[in-house]
Amino acid sequence: MGSIHYEGNDNIHITSPLDPEEFRNQAYKVVDFIADYYKNIEQFPVLSQVHPGYLRKTLTQQSAPDDPECLESILRDVDRFVIPGISHWQSPNFFAYFPSSSSSAGLVGEMLSTGFNVVGFNWVSSPAATELEMLVVDWFGEMLKLPKCFLFSGGGGGGGVLQGTTCEAILSTLVAARDQKLKVIGRDMFSKLVVYGSDQTHMSLQKAAQVAGFGEENFRVIKTTKSDSFGLSPTSLKMAIQSDIEKGFVPLYLCATIGTTSTNAVDPLDSLCEIAQQNGIWVHVDAAYAGSVCICPEFRHFLNGVEKANSFSLNAHKWFFTAPDCCCLWLKDPSALRNSLSVNPSYLENKATDSGEVVDYKDWQITLSRRFRAMKLWVVMKSYGVANLRMFLRSHVKMAKIFEELVGRDERFEVVVPRNFGLVCFRLLFSEIDKSNAMNLKLLERINKSGRAYMTHAMVAGMYLIRFSVGGTMTEERHIVTAWKLVQELANEIYLM
Amino acid sequence: MGSIHYEGNDNIHITSPLDPEEFRNQAYKVVDFIADYYKNIEQFPVLSQVHPGYLRKTLTQQSAPDDPECLESILRDVDRFVIPGISHWQSPNFFAYFPSSSSSAGLVGEMLSTGFNVVGFNWVSSPAATELEMLVVDWFGEMLKLPKCFLFSGGGGGGGVLQGTTCEAILSTLVAARDQKLKVIGRDMFSKLVVYGSDQTHMSLQKAAQVAGFGEENFRVIKTTKSDSFGLSPTSLKMAIQSDIEKGFVPLYLCATIGTTSTNAVDPLDSLCEIAQQNGIWVHVDAAYAGSVCICPEFRHFLNGVEKANSFSLNAHKWFFTAPDCCCLWLKDPSALRNSLSVNPSYLENKATDSGEVVDYKDWQITLSRRFRAMKLWVVMKSYGVANLRMFLRSHVKMAKIFEELVGRDERFEVVVPRNFGLVCFRLLFSEIDKSNAMNLKLLERINKSGRAYMTHAMVAGMYLIRFSVGGTMTEERHIVTAWKLVQELANEIYLM
Repeated sequence: MGSIHYEGNDNIHITSPLDPEEFRNQAYKVVDFIADYYKNIEQFPVLSQVHPGYLRKTLTQQSAPDDPECLESILRDVDRFVIPGISHWQSPNFFAYFPSSSSSAGLVGEMLSTGFNVVGFNWVSSPAATELEMLVVDWFGEMLKLPKCFLFSGGGGGGGVLQGTTCEAILSTLVAARDQKLKVIGRDMFSKLVVYGSDQTHMSLQKAAQVAGFGEENFRVIKTTKSDSFGLSPTSLKMAIQSDIEKGFVPLYLCATIGTTSTNAVDPLDSLCEIAQQNGIWVHVDAAYAGSVCICPEFRHFLNGVEKANSFSLNAHKWFFTAPDCCCLWLKDPSALRNSLSVNPSYLENKATDSGEVVDYKDWQITLSRRFRAMKLWVVMKSYGVANLRMFLRSHVKMAKIFEELVGRDERFEVVVPRNFGLVCFRLLFSEIDKSNAMNLKLLERINKSGRAYMTHAMVAGMYLIRFSVGGTMTEERHIVTAWKLVQELANEIYLM
Repeated sequence: MGSIHYEGNDNIHITSPLDPEEFRNQAYKVVDFIADYYKNIEQFPVLSQVHPGYLRKTLTQQSAPDDPECLESILRDVDRFVIPGISHWQSPNFFAYFPSSSSSAGLVGEMLSTGFNVVGFNWVSSPAATELEMLVVDWFGEMLKLPKCFLFSGGGGGGGVLQGTTCEAILSTLVAARDQKLKVIGRDMFSKLVVYGSDQTHMSLQKAAQVAGFGEENFRVIKTTKSDSFGLSPTSLKMAIQSDIEKGFVPLYLCATIGTTSTNAVDPLDSLCEIAQQNGIWVHVDAAYAGSVCICPEFRHFLNGVEKANSFSLNAHKWFFTAPDCCCLWLKDPSALRNSLSVNPSYLENKATDSGEVVDYKDWQITLSRRFRAMKLWVVMKSYGVANLRMFLRSHVKMAKIFEELVGRDERFEVVVPRNFGLVCFRLLFSEIDKSNAMNLKLLERINKSGRAYMTHAMVAGMYLIRFSVGGTMTEERHIVTAWKLVQELANEIYLM
């Protein structure tokens, strides 16, 4: 390719699409662009203010150009057309959803991974991709004090894998549980299997069940209550299971959550696992957001009972300074996963696989191709060290606590549920629930329209509440204080209406 | 976070995990590291020569460090511990599998995407991520001269999406087809649905069928023959369908392939689609590797018949200079996908979605979270322009042709099947098939052990053949010639044994 030369209409000279010096020059410029973006990120409205269809309306270029464009021109287009349509997840004033918190180490780790650009579907296709992954999931597991049975180093056959998202982790473990059970009771019992979650479980579970072929009649959404802080009650689970068994259904899979999306509720893992074990149910623990903070000893108790679960996952791209995507999934018995997900075409046969001495991660996930995600997680762990990582996470929790205290001091507001991690759920209080919901919706719309902060909502037990989620890597105490002042200021406006 | 200061044991001062100037400095160093890696890439054995377990054996660091390490020290570890375990997919001497061909534009595009780090699950979470994606899939579709019904701009409800891999594209369309059919014939007919592929179809289909809950008895692998160049014979498909219908099965889904993995066979799309249409079968066209080259008019005829298919996908991370992962999937009727994959929890409700004016890509794929993949594809298209992209692809095909001619001139060898794209399938010829297979296995092992090139094999119709796949971004004619000399040299050794 080095021999290819081309003079575009605008005199751009392309020697090769991967000339090292050209890459170096272009990458420097893009690094500058990104660094400057971070520097100026507070200038932009956090939530993009564009209207549907804005891009087609503003962009003059309506099809792929025939001739090349220089990087400067492309970056100008990013400035003009892309940035206005970005909601700035890296902004220190982003308090929406859960964080997607990056870091210098996460970013350069991702660059290294993209630079090597290996497709490590099996061991032989790039041994380092597999072996570094086995290493970092063990390191992370140790930091979390996961029981040895979840680690490669435990020697009992357990281990971890880096998948893209929690949706994949749930889908792959659900499929493993399904096939393991059907092997025992027969495939014609598929329509009798039941999947359990609560009304606070993440939508991933429902989606995974749909994909894996479960019908609506095979999916139980167990109601939670405010008195249980929206955690899944073991009594309710027990009753649902009993009722199902009486009707001839076969309990299969439970997804328990540590830190639900709406309110950061924590399901009582230990009791739920007891019940599940008695009924031969696979328990997956979804700690997508809150799992990371459990590397701090004072939070580890939230994971108590995980030793009785079958699988456990968290998203390092949420609250562990690692760029998306990076979901860590640990299993006691990955062979169930392999039995469901292995396909071994002749074109992938190789001696290492035949030897049985290696892990071929393609058999641990839905897809064949896989990115070298271990690199970024390794770089994050080494760049900061466990002590700093704990300190960063604690600082987010501390900031959430400050916000919670500020809310508590204004009697127009209530903190809706006790804060467990970095999420504060609050609302304006009115005696009538309908009015309360309407007013809080109005308040949130004004907050987000201001462009000065971005928060999102949840509906629990008929209550509309505002979620204030702290975890942005660049967020400092001053941003918390300013955000609260903004909330108060806009609440004043609403009261005056 | 800016207020956090920490003095590690080794005097590393961490101000904030995302300080723009620290990011700039670190990213410069990593850019240099990657550029130097590309410069020196030919020094490394293409296939890693490490043994299983090498990393744990050589690495002294057995758990995550408590204290931070500086980037220089981490990059030294990458050099010492990671690179020996890398199989160098970016090497110009990598001819294995299919290419995972990157480019400067693909790399900096990925950097931009990681820099913004948005999680564009729905439109409102970052409008630019959705709208740029809708734009680039249309641009790509136009370059491929896909029928208008597959494009957003066609106005008929069709459109495209960027998923991670072909496995996801097949799984999501299979699930859409399954649910659409079951809605009509009833869920209790699930066990009667049949999925069709050939013995050359990629393993993704089997894996997707397993995940989606299809049993072995619902999966047909239709045999191909050398006389059909390993393409799926319409007659064979027809017979399989008829036989299934007679047995009370319901034909559901066919995966046709343009450029199979083993030999780059092309299934006769037009005839297959005719038969499928007559039987109410969803046809997905998997052009994972070969799809990209169909932007060249002289290759477009391979896609003839796609207008009768339901969905079509290709991997831009294979042969379109875009870093993994980036699978482009187009559908005539994405509503089937949305019906199967939509889950709408209250915490994601928003006005834009309610308006019906926007695309929420979470409903077009297996997972909720999604990376901003459109950015890199857009940067690739703009940086090179269509004319250059065609020229790059043609240069790969031309190099494959040169290799094919070299093989043809040595009478010890045969080219096993006619070359369609950038893949040459060849073998040493012996009168007995067992001897032939053993000798070609031995030859391939020697090629890969030399470290001077990496090729892989396939088994078709009992024949062991060597695959020489051209598509590395840095591959030049001289690499082709050297690789062939290596093959000849090692063949000589084998003959002397």
